[in-house]
Amino acid sequence: MLKGVSIEEGLKLVVDRLGCTGKEMVSAADACGRVLADNLISPENIPPFRRSPLDGYAFRAEDTLDASEENPAVFEIIEEIPAGKAPEHTVGRMQAVKILTGAPVPEGADAIEKYEVVEADEKTLRLTHPYRKNCNVVPVGEDISKGAPVLSDGTVISPAYLGILAGLGFDRIPVYKKPQVTLISTGSELVPIDAPIPLGKIRNSSIYTLKAFLEANGALVKMVPIVPDDAELIAQAVDHACQESDLVFTTGGVSVGDYDMLQRSMELLHADVLFWKMQMKPGGAFLASFHQGKPVISLSGNPSAAAMACFMIGIPALRKVGGRKEYELERCRLRMLEGFSKKNFVRRFLPGRLVVQNGEAYISVTPSQGNGILHPLHGCNVIAEIPQGSPAMEPGTMVNAYLL
Amino acid sequence: MLKGVSIEEGLKLVVDRLGCTGKEMVSAADACGRVLADNLISPENIPPFRRSPLDGYAFRAEDTLDASEENPAVFEIIEEIPAGKAPEHTVGRMQAVKILTGAPVPEGADAIEKYEVVEADEKTLRLTHPYRKNCNVVPVGEDISKGAPVLSDGTVISPAYLGILAGLGFDRIPVYKKPQVTLISTGSELVPIDAPIPLGKIRNSSIYTLKAFLEANGALVKMVPIVPDDAELIAQAVDHACQESDLVFTTGGVSVGDYDMLQRSMELLHADVLFWKMQMKPGGAFLASFHQGKPVISLSGNPSAAAMACFMIGIPALRKVGGRKEYELERCRLRMLEGFSKKNFVRRFLPGRLVVQNGEAYISVTPSQGNGILHPLHGCNVIAEIPQGSPAMEPGTMVNAYLL
Repeated sequence: MLKGVSIEEGLKLVVDRLGCTGKEMVSAADACGRVLADNLISPENIPPFRRSPLDGYAFRAEDTLDASEENPAVFEIIEEIPAGKAPEHTVGRMQAVKILTGAPVPEGADAIEKYEVVEADEKTLRLTHPYRKNCNVVPVGEDISKGAPVLSDGTVISPAYLGILAGLGFDRIPVYKKPQVTLISTGSELVPIDAPIPLGKIRNSSIYTLKAFLEANGALVKMVPIVPDDAELIAQAVDHACQESDLVFTTGGVSVGDYDMLQRSMELLHADVLFWKMQMKPGGAFLASFHQGKPVISLSGNPSAAAMACFMIGIPALRKVGGRKEYELERCRLRMLEGFSKKNFVRRFLPGRLVVQNGEAYISVTPSQGNGILHPLHGCNVIAEIPQGSPAMEPGTMVNAYLL
Repeated sequence: MLKGVSIEEGLKLVVDRLGCTGKEMVSAADACGRVLADNLISPENIPPFRRSPLDGYAFRAEDTLDASEENPAVFEIIEEIPAGKAPEHTVGRMQAVKILTGAPVPEGADAIEKYEVVEADEKTLRLTHPYRKNCNVVPVGEDISKGAPVLSDGTVISPAYLGILAGLGFDRIPVYKKPQVTLISTGSELVPIDAPIPLGKIRNSSIYTLKAFLEANGALVKMVPIVPDDAELIAQAVDHACQESDLVFTTGGVSVGDYDMLQRSMELLHADVLFWKMQMKPGGAFLASFHQGKPVISLSGNPSAAAMACFMIGIPALRKVGGRKEYELERCRLRMLEGFSKKNFVRRFLPGRLVVQNGEAYISVTPSQGNGILHPLHGCNVIAEIPQGSPAMEPGTMVNAYLL
């Protein structure tokens, strides 16, 4: 078993062994936020017909070859084609149709001019200069041609992507099944949040924050009853969870003082322990194992430490199991709004909020509202990295950051 | 009826008449993302007992008054108190307890020193200097005191806020009911996405994008069958939708050419039309009405225009109905990554993605992946505002922006 790996080493050790969930078909109405489970190609041309991009008249370009101010080409208007209507006639020599934006250009016609610049009445159109063939005609397949790639396997379906797929007629969409996650809280000091709280005990509250972050990253999360500090009971809970879940998360029992608890449970299960501890603060107390082919992500009982290790290892692992091709947290560089006053002997991670001020991007670690002192994660959507060995940092210092 | 209002005027006209949904209780496990429907105050002190912030020893400060290197104060260790355990003894004169992080400080003791800096064995502790009363003791209620405000009515419950509430024992949480929204697509050119598509018709696809954006802002969305361009049928559909929904959104029938359709439907219903058209592009084709006390938000049939007016008016309205105190889109200033080449005779809004590059915040309007040409919204999470009368803009130009 490795001990004290870097986050990057730890993440690689975990994700290299992860597969992903099976596929299922969902209706387009339910597909937003899901992960596409196929490389989709366009089943048709968009537009499927030659389309008018404006309100105007369609005619044959060759009929305008000799047109001039002195000698206008005069067309008979034979039809009006609003959007949604199929043309009834083929446009012949010196014939034209009135055509609206989005409507199909009729057979025969190969040029369009807009209303505002021509002389026309109900029955007659006059054009005073020559037009090129295909002038103002949107060709078949201009937006996308039949057989062209649309979206690739592993893409998260955004509202806009959903609109694309619906526009191509994908009413049923192949997606990866949502990963099933079981969350196990261990610790004899914990009581459920709806129970009376005896002196010295604490409520099992941080599990709710973890659940919400995991659900926001695609998981179906099951919380099971609190397990006391007993290696056999923890082993039983993990063993059962691995049978019914794609990933298992535990909290508690991985710090230096109480290391033996989770480690001992994994030994009882003959699980494959990948590593213990990571070079990060908070969140360094961490155990990564596999049991029954399922990852067991064992987080600290400390809420901040649990969240940070969950962000850096747990969420990328969850995303990969859920089929996402880009499973790592997106990185960027931004400035610290408030600075950071401590010296850093280890690589440190600070949760905060992305704040945009006059074109500059900052991470702020002060609460936006509510009682920040109660929870270190506030409206956390970005994590700043303070390198090992950094001195105290002034406001405005540029740091690496990870977007949640 | 007003015509051609500014976005700000239009939004005010709509939201001034909006109430919000009723309240319901949900379990903490289901509360993330919901809107808090009460001003919550803390039912207890956190911590509820005097807590140790470190692993160490607790004793009486007064027993150390004369302690020095030459004349150490020697204590009898009478108990060990791990986190989660209630102390069994009161600490008397020259007595101490071993105490772990998070554990309650026993009666009598009023000072704590950490393991690393003292001389101690199983039974005895030696201290070599005086300690102040309450040294290293976290007082009752330091994090939050009983009766103090925690989170206010109208706050969206984030993962961290959920952790706060769970930590205070709120296992059932008062939230606003999710607003019921009915989405009505109007247009004789539309066919359902799962139907064969005759020449000239188009799929009713952009409604899926709208649905996803509305759901992301807290709505329960119902899509009803497409209504053809018939004022009576549209009126019937709106009337029915107003009976079963908190808000009604329609698409189509509000442009200059087809203005009469929605307007005529509203006249048939004797609805109260607030205004038609807004000074914005795209999205200026827009009709805002109230019927049966419910807002009817009538968007353009053009997907980009529908989305933009939905963002600027529809989503704030939805959020307000859903109880959110901060219902307007958050504003900031950021730079245009690619610039914008057109002159702007009207106030224009560009959807894009927030991109952070080396501490600078940009809006990018190019697609991040997939086939951007098919959909103007890409991974849209921010909207840039181009002021009326602006010339073409260079890359890096600072603009006002709205975060989705």
